[in-house]
Amino acid sequence: MSKHIQGIAASSGIAIAKAYRLETPHLVVEKKTVTDVEAEIARFDEAVAKAKTELEQIKNHALQTLGEDKAAIFSAHLLVLSDPELLNPIKEKISLEQVNAEYALDEVASMFVAMFEAMDNEYMKERAADIRDVTKRVLAHLLGVTMSNPSLISEEVVIIAEDLTPSDTAQLNRQYVKGFTTDIGGRTSHSAIMARSLEIPAVVGTKVVTAEIENGDLIIVDGLDGRVVVNPSEEELAQYNEKRARFEAQKAEWAKLVHEPTVTSDGYHVELAANIGTPDDVKGVLANGAEGIGLYRTEFLYMGRSELPTEEEQFVAYKTVLERMEGKPVVVRTLDIGGDKELPYLELPKEMNPFLGFRAIRLCLEMQEMFRTQLRALLRASVYGNLKIMFPMIATVDEFRQAKAVLLEEKEKLVQAGVPVAEFEVGMMVEIPAAAVLADQFAKEVDFFSIGTNDLIQYTMAADRMNERVSYLYQPYNPAILRLIANVIDAAHKEGKWAGMCGEMAGEELAIPILLGLGLDEFSMSATSVLRARSQLKKLSKEETASLKETILSMNTAEEVVAFVKQTFHIE
Amino acid sequence: MSKHIQGIAASSGIAIAKAYRLETPHLVVEKKTVTDVEAEIARFDEAVAKAKTELEQIKNHALQTLGEDKAAIFSAHLLVLSDPELLNPIKEKISLEQVNAEYALDEVASMFVAMFEAMDNEYMKERAADIRDVTKRVLAHLLGVTMSNPSLISEEVVIIAEDLTPSDTAQLNRQYVKGFTTDIGGRTSHSAIMARSLEIPAVVGTKVVTAEIENGDLIIVDGLDGRVVVNPSEEELAQYNEKRARFEAQKAEWAKLVHEPTVTSDGYHVELAANIGTPDDVKGVLANGAEGIGLYRTEFLYMGRSELPTEEEQFVAYKTVLERMEGKPVVVRTLDIGGDKELPYLELPKEMNPFLGFRAIRLCLEMQEMFRTQLRALLRASVYGNLKIMFPMIATVDEFRQAKAVLLEEKEKLVQAGVPVAEFEVGMMVEIPAAAVLADQFAKEVDFFSIGTNDLIQYTMAADRMNERVSYLYQPYNPAILRLIANVIDAAHKEGKWAGMCGEMAGEELAIPILLGLGLDEFSMSATSVLRARSQLKKLSKEETASLKETILSMNTAEEVVAFVKQTFHIE
Repeated sequence: MSKHIQGIAASSGIAIAKAYRLETPHLVVEKKTVTDVEAEIARFDEAVAKAKTELEQIKNHALQTLGEDKAAIFSAHLLVLSDPELLNPIKEKISLEQVNAEYALDEVASMFVAMFEAMDNEYMKERAADIRDVTKRVLAHLLGVTMSNPSLISEEVVIIAEDLTPSDTAQLNRQYVKGFTTDIGGRTSHSAIMARSLEIPAVVGTKVVTAEIENGDLIIVDGLDGRVVVNPSEEELAQYNEKRARFEAQKAEWAKLVHEPTVTSDGYHVELAANIGTPDDVKGVLANGAEGIGLYRTEFLYMGRSELPTEEEQFVAYKTVLERMEGKPVVVRTLDIGGDKELPYLELPKEMNPFLGFRAIRLCLEMQEMFRTQLRALLRASVYGNLKIMFPMIATVDEFRQAKAVLLEEKEKLVQAGVPVAEFEVGMMVEIPAAAVLADQFAKEVDFFSIGTNDLIQYTMAADRMNERVSYLYQPYNPAILRLIANVIDAAHKEGKWAGMCGEMAGEELAIPILLGLGLDEFSMSATSVLRARSQLKKLSKEETASLKETILSMNTAEEVVAFVKQTFHIE
Repeated sequence: MSKHIQGIAASSGIAIAKAYRLETPHLVVEKKTVTDVEAEIARFDEAVAKAKTELEQIKNHALQTLGEDKAAIFSAHLLVLSDPELLNPIKEKISLEQVNAEYALDEVASMFVAMFEAMDNEYMKERAADIRDVTKRVLAHLLGVTMSNPSLISEEVVIIAEDLTPSDTAQLNRQYVKGFTTDIGGRTSHSAIMARSLEIPAVVGTKVVTAEIENGDLIIVDGLDGRVVVNPSEEELAQYNEKRARFEAQKAEWAKLVHEPTVTSDGYHVELAANIGTPDDVKGVLANGAEGIGLYRTEFLYMGRSELPTEEEQFVAYKTVLERMEGKPVVVRTLDIGGDKELPYLELPKEMNPFLGFRAIRLCLEMQEMFRTQLRALLRASVYGNLKIMFPMIATVDEFRQAKAVLLEEKEKLVQAGVPVAEFEVGMMVEIPAAAVLADQFAKEVDFFSIGTNDLIQYTMAADRMNERVSYLYQPYNPAILRLIANVIDAAHKEGKWAGMCGEMAGEELAIPILLGLGLDEFSMSATSVLRARSQLKKLSKEETASLKETILSMNTAEEVVAFVKQTFHIE
């Protein structure tokens, strides 16, 4: 009898292979009294040094297989292992309490983990995960226990684990690891993100796979529907082989669209662009045939470090992206920090409602030196490609004017100094309801709009999408949201400007027919969604979708809209 | 030479009298070792008991002079003095550390004060102020020091103080205390709120009055412009006497309007209503000639206590308000807690962005027993007057339908049980952008709208108005806000419904001509603003203000709107 286990679909595709249980070594920490405190501290230092060497190796492996963006996490881990705020209390504990290094490490690290986890802030919670991962590695060295080493796997397997740490995932060899499934985690946990970027099918958050699966069981990981099948029957195996074949065929069909333009069945062209975080992501953008970059989030340049990036560092990053895109449009969003994205070195005050707080352009207009440095780097890079600059979190016409004035001032200074600057468009994110409502006024001042649905929905519905108790109000298909989007697009077109969208919504199968009908010019999404979206758009008629606009905008509820679109376009 | 000191205008009017310095006794706490721990605890208990008796007296005095709402703070203080979480650690400290009661009290109370102040939450910060006030009282008893006693003042004075505690303010005798001025505080501090409710001119937050003013100095407190003049010249005295006379004359002119309807110069009637928090506030509503209650905030029934109010307690409160209003409309808002208004006994989880969180109708639809209890109390009270019920924080049509269904279910049950229930209107607050955008759809389902501008502005601009760094974005006159308001009013009228406003904006001199022009049917404000607003509305022409609608709604920025309205209506 086969067993079916339901989890969360974290990375699409079907994997069929033997189970390989990735055991987490059981690290038992005992409290012992030590007499030679100096020797104990030396033993601790040695373990830290070994862990660092190991992490350097993993980081290099990750750089080659996963790219700069993903490898950055190991830089963060290495930082943790150099952080005196973590290391000193451990050494003090060893010497003051005359205890063994294992115990001191475990106590201090647990305290930090608890502190960061209590912070109710995604960034800080990730820091807790980092500390846990790093602590385990040092502890293993202290205890002389060998850590699991997924890089040693040499036959085709599906990995079964309680959780995969970032360091585990970084060591996976795609040749042998066909898929994985874990007890814990969600769609946005590290392991899920890495699985998608490695294109390994994965099902996470099953709660029970380590309890239910033995080494050698035959396993199907269905990353499309979030299901794991243990020891499937002949019939099930055939079914899933067929499902895998269909999925592969579809992927192959999509792959044919890589170099095609995005044209609807009635000959209307829209631009399909991708969102990126680092220059390294451009590879994926090109591999998936995106026609441009609709959102380059520049925050990553500022994160996981101890001070602001220099103008030169930024210039190199922007230039690299522009060059690699070979003249295709690249929309760069200026720094959007604050809110849930904190930079420890800026020491921003704690806010009661960070999503309604001092962030993005609000902060940049005040911390002008930081802002101007970024703008200079962008302006200098402008000659290397097709640059468009946009400002985040614009709420008032004044703010846009101020930001643009600062940009033009920096441009003028560079031009005066003889530095070449190319032509570029200046636009804004529309993610605050006030900007969407007043889009006709903004349209006179901008070159383009990019609608940031993630925030726009959360403010328009007054519901924090990170807060589970009100996440039911995060409704992309609420007619109020669709009306604001329509208003923004209409306002842009009236002034001869273009309107794009770079929120998650732009890549959703249900949203695409609606947005096409509303006249959206540019759809920017994660690179891996581009081909699916192109395939869908090629089958849609602009005229037909446009004819539904009035009907949809006069609906009552999100449920009504969803039901109507599903039925009209035979979705699901 | 006179001295001019600038502060914050906290309560309007001009007071001229001799300075009376309200000295805060200097309570010096020394650490001493005690041997008879039992006796020390007994001494502490006795001081607590004395403080309680005193507080009971102050509370009774406040009940008579300030009303139930303001006296509630002393119930809170009495609760603090019965709280084992505060008292037990003090007694433990006395007995474990063998220290004197003064020291133990000071240490423990300081810890609690620091904890509550760090909480970055207005409600909790007030708790810190309460603990500080109460601690001081107990400490004075322990030290045998007499607390300042403003109730003993028997000649006309202006009080000069570092700050006035709630207990100080509650003891002020209006006959003798003509005004006051303090070093610290703001427009929303306890003392400022109490001054307005006592109609005593006040200037707070001057930083320096206690340093600059001696007993017996002649003082002018200009609560209109936030200025304090010390030892004025003859000329200044004459000026301020004239200013006072003008202010009194204006108040007298306004007072004549108490029983007049609110009709514009071209004969258009609007309803001027008042916002209240407790049945006791009805007095002020009637004294100021409001035509109804546009917002009865029911939260106070739930606050400053240790468990939910019973149906009977609520019924009595609602019935009292309806009866006292003698058939004039009373719009009751169902419970709006969560966000910045916490109820400790509900133990709601801490949220990262409480303003975007689980509050008001979201919470009521989940905690249905609590919600149904309130609705039953309202339904039973409906026969005693002209009741209108409205739901707060409605974001989707679904939520309104659900809330209304629960209400009608409870009504049906009461009717089945033979309990009389009168006809009543059911409406909603429009304070979430999604509701304002989709007002035409909501208008088909509601009997009326009441626009809550405080929240509507904060969500539409994505700026927490409590957060100083972004409070510049709290822009009532931003054209985006005015467009949403216009949309709500138009949508209501199209379906033959009425639209009111109960945010602070409704009472603002600058806003009134705009709102009249947009067609607002009901203006609800603090009772003390009603007569000024009526006087202003009588001079305005509906037709003229309406003719400016298109011009205003097509403006770019709030500054532009403000300048235009000031110039057109000769304001300031």
